[in-house]
Amino acid sequence: MEANQDLTLTCPIPIQNYPHVLLAHGGGGRLMHQLIDQMFRPAFGTATEIPHDATTLTLPGQKIAMTTDSYVVNPLFFPGGDIGSMAIYGTVNDLAMAGARPLYLSVGFILEEGLPMTTLWRIIQAMQMAAKRAGVKIVTGDTKVVDRGKGDGIFINTSGVGIIEHPLAISPTSVQSGDAVLVSGDLGRHGIAIMAVREGLEFETTIESDSAPVADVVLELLNAGVDIHCLRDLTRGGLASALNEIATATDLKIAIDENKIPVREDVGGACEILGFDPLYVANEGRFVAFIPEKDREKSLAILQQKESSACAIGTVGDRTGARVTMRSKIGATRIIDLLSGEQLPRIC
Amino acid sequence: MEANQDLTLTCPIPIQNYPHVLLAHGGGGRLMHQLIDQMFRPAFGTATEIPHDATTLTLPGQKIAMTTDSYVVNPLFFPGGDIGSMAIYGTVNDLAMAGARPLYLSVGFILEEGLPMTTLWRIIQAMQMAAKRAGVKIVTGDTKVVDRGKGDGIFINTSGVGIIEHPLAISPTSVQSGDAVLVSGDLGRHGIAIMAVREGLEFETTIESDSAPVADVVLELLNAGVDIHCLRDLTRGGLASALNEIATATDLKIAIDENKIPVREDVGGACEILGFDPLYVANEGRFVAFIPEKDREKSLAILQQKESSACAIGTVGDRTGARVTMRSKIGATRIIDLLSGEQLPRIC
Repeated sequence: MEANQDLTLTCPIPIQNYPHVLLAHGGGGRLMHQLIDQMFRPAFGTATEIPHDATTLTLPGQKIAMTTDSYVVNPLFFPGGDIGSMAIYGTVNDLAMAGARPLYLSVGFILEEGLPMTTLWRIIQAMQMAAKRAGVKIVTGDTKVVDRGKGDGIFINTSGVGIIEHPLAISPTSVQSGDAVLVSGDLGRHGIAIMAVREGLEFETTIESDSAPVADVVLELLNAGVDIHCLRDLTRGGLASALNEIATATDLKIAIDENKIPVREDVGGACEILGFDPLYVANEGRFVAFIPEKDREKSLAILQQKESSACAIGTVGDRTGARVTMRSKIGATRIIDLLSGEQLPRIC
Repeated sequence: MEANQDLTLTCPIPIQNYPHVLLAHGGGGRLMHQLIDQMFRPAFGTATEIPHDATTLTLPGQKIAMTTDSYVVNPLFFPGGDIGSMAIYGTVNDLAMAGARPLYLSVGFILEEGLPMTTLWRIIQAMQMAAKRAGVKIVTGDTKVVDRGKGDGIFINTSGVGIIEHPLAISPTSVQSGDAVLVSGDLGRHGIAIMAVREGLEFETTIESDSAPVADVVLELLNAGVDIHCLRDLTRGGLASALNEIATATDLKIAIDENKIPVREDVGGACEILGFDPLYVANEGRFVAFIPEKDREKSLAILQQKESSACAIGTVGDRTGARVTMRSKIGATRIIDLLSGEQLPRIC
């Protein structure tokens, strides 16, 4: 276990004294200050700032986007990602879905007493790298510790603020009949990667989560002058839920084509074995974009530069009642409905 | 149990069908939409808005404050408050400590499978009332459900954004030798109220938490032209921890007088019985203010209009090494140190 040894050596908290998180690490006293000052602040690049209850920030504009997300994914580490990087990318991506440039994140930890200190350190390092990759700054935080058996290792909340630098109303209300429906890449990898770890399944190749920040490609679309009507990330509930939410909000029909929907062969195979429909499986680095037909090719080219599997999968129909339909591979048309719950709990 | 019956009747989720929170309520499907659309949105006044990943906001200024806090208090309901109102006031108060006018809050719920639906509804209603009282708007949210035994009923994260409308640098770095140290009211009620419920203790009178929003009184100080140097709320770790944090950040001595520290007789008595020191007990509606001596009387008058127990408790000394000292009731001087952990876990 070389990786673990390394964590033991680099962990800024003396793990011979504190191998596990204690209730006192959330108590507002010396141990909590040690955790914040020695682990969180240096990792998140706020080492020189004076601790205070709230952080003051100057925003280069007055139109902002704000979002929040809690992350309770199980397991904490999986092929292609972990709870820490997800907590950064997920919130960055929510801001991107408003066409915002993500700037600042807050982080709230709920730690379970007994969490190995090296596990926390590994997650903190992943968050540090993810924030750097996504170009955001973690500006404020909070740590709570709950008694053993009252949590599950670690839950993370991140909230984000971004700045909106364009005049578009990127929202379901802007979606129009005739809009092209684009997805930013192949579907289902995050859900299957989680499921494989949870169930101890092995496929021929390891399926890695698609967890990634997508704000940069959204900003590229905006810079290229694409008149984006609406964006939605394809997390819990997958593509099917995202399309249903937008159809319902707009009272528009959306028609997609199964032949066009990008699902990797190994993911499709795993879905068949596990009895999942990739349309409903969660992704963590994929979104759907509603774009006027005139901007379709330009948008696709930009999306495909980042993910070659990005694809136009359908069009928006008439405003005659919300409904999502899919033309199947054999030519039949069926309704794609919202599920009651979800196929897979604690996917994010 | 008339209160419970009433909750059953008013709960917007049909509790005969859904008496408890299910894993599916966090799954991104129909049940989650029902919870959000029928319970959260109407309560938080966002019923007419189109759901989207992030909320777009216009801020009347570019200098903002941002903060985050997770609430894991146990029990969920206690004399004078509950987890829901605390989650609003606590974050509002953190913004106030930067001298900001609190505007927008995000709310992230982590629910445990099996949480009674009426408990959730009671908390939502408390949040709605608290947000109204504090003058803030809940603009975005997130809901996760974890399996039974992996949470503890409900955890709430709130993050907040406020606007800074004054030119002051309200921060530990602004604290100066000679500053007056003021507390905004009597100490220790929140911690003792929680402890009494947890331990099943009964005192002659019920001690109620001091949980309350303090942003309005801070804005009054600013409007009156008080040159506030620093503010710090007295939550986890109480007054002793707040003073130690500021002494450490500034390398200044702080001297307080036990005779001046406002602790109600019943709270003092309960502390003695329980073996607590009120200096370390958490409050949820109290703060310490560092104010130039010239503004002391004006500030006290404003604070006392809201809480008659507000009091000047000490002064800031020389910059000759951080240290907090207290002159005791019998005239001896002792050092007030930071605790390792805290007297009481899960107080907030």
